[in-house]
Amino acid sequence: MKFDVFSLFPQVFNDYLNSSILLKAIENQLIEVAVHDIRDWASGKHHVTDEPPYGGGGGMVMKPEPVFHAIEGVLGVPPECPIILLTPQGRVFTQKDAQNFARIPHVALLCGRYEGFDERIRQHLVTDEISIGDYVLTGGELPALVLIDAISRNISGVLGDPDGAQDDSHAENLLEYPHYTRPENFRGWKVPEILLSGNHALIADWRREQSLRRTWERRPDLLEKAALSAADYAKLKKIGWKPAEKETDQS
Amino acid sequence: MKFDVFSLFPQVFNDYLNSSILLKAIENQLIEVAVHDIRDWASGKHHVTDEPPYGGGGGMVMKPEPVFHAIEGVLGVPPECPIILLTPQGRVFTQKDAQNFARIPHVALLCGRYEGFDERIRQHLVTDEISIGDYVLTGGELPALVLIDAISRNISGVLGDPDGAQDDSHAENLLEYPHYTRPENFRGWKVPEILLSGNHALIADWRREQSLRRTWERRPDLLEKAALSAADYAKLKKIGWKPAEKETDQS
Repeated sequence: MKFDVFSLFPQVFNDYLNSSILLKAIENQLIEVAVHDIRDWASGKHHVTDEPPYGGGGGMVMKPEPVFHAIEGVLGVPPECPIILLTPQGRVFTQKDAQNFARIPHVALLCGRYEGFDERIRQHLVTDEISIGDYVLTGGELPALVLIDAISRNISGVLGDPDGAQDDSHAENLLEYPHYTRPENFRGWKVPEILLSGNHALIADWRREQSLRRTWERRPDLLEKAALSAADYAKLKKIGWKPAEKETDQS
Repeated sequence: MKFDVFSLFPQVFNDYLNSSILLKAIENQLIEVAVHDIRDWASGKHHVTDEPPYGGGGGMVMKPEPVFHAIEGVLGVPPECPIILLTPQGRVFTQKDAQNFARIPHVALLCGRYEGFDERIRQHLVTDEISIGDYVLTGGELPALVLIDAISRNISGVLGDPDGAQDDSHAENLLEYPHYTRPENFRGWKVPEILLSGNHALIADWRREQSLRRTWERRPDLLEKAALSAADYAKLKKIGWKPAEKETDQS
């Protein structure tokens, strides 16, 4: 899968792309990341990429020409791959998106400056607007890295273990069960005995219950979206969960 | 404000911290970021930081000792600042958190490896667990940078304009209005005339309506949390919005 990234700060991507799983994925040609400097496509001696907004107000606004020229110059006219604008105005990225994008061979990621992007870029160039969460960042660079990381993990071969990504939190809308490793006793805090029992069926059962309990306690909104079995509902009832009563039943 | 970051991949932070607003904030001594390598605190010749999980299953689990030793070694026993674990199991970070953390002088950010952290770290060391969104990443490094960036923007003096952060999307649970800059006509797509009118009251009114419309269309969940005036409700009604009817009224 190829990622073409467009940014005014291309230098911030190197360290992260050169580490850990992403570096291996690049070396193994499972992903390719090309970072393009929008400023290279700005005209004039000073390569101006932003100007004050029409109508007044603070902050600078990204000009349309350098962005159109950069994306069209690299990807052709019209670009054939999705052009994703990273912006707090976009729909909120989820694990489901990470899985879906992993099936696409090529995407472009456009890193906004959050002070503002000329609206014509959204209207006539961008095909998708994505936010990584309800908070404001200096630019789209960290969101672009978040997408590259989350998507790449779902590309076959990127994680050593082929089922690795399926076990992760959020892969099925449940939080993960607690993990323990050595030492068995650390400062008097012991590993739960069941994990030392060697009884794999009991361990799997305990882990599932812990996962359900944790999701219910911390993220009941996720639990509503999870695909649960009758055994799961039995576990949930055992720990005090009750099915939500419909409001209309109470009137 | 001081950020102490604990990670197994300390080298991935440099590029981002050395760019743009964060670099200026560091140079101006408004923030300080110290990145610590957890591996430096692992014992034995091989500095082992992870081992297989008790009870079996894939992936490796972060051992408790190196993490306790690193955090206690740097911050003392017990640490006096909040210890935030970046994990998809945590509560989801929002702009409100960014504003609240900006008032604290010192936080520690613990970057998990998402394959798993020994549960005793959560139970006995960490004071807060935060997720940046419902997706899975390779580690807590990008989430830590997201927090540093989002929090720093709310520290007085970090943005040039003292009111800068207040205008951003999500600062008041509304998405931003559209921005336009030069040229006035780009490929036949023109800037809305009202922005060229010079009538600041009308422009403010138009922008507010655009902001309300965009939030209603894209993120109705945010609109419910926004503090809206009677004039805002009038604008919303004008564009077709209706107050939600209570379900019990329909039965």
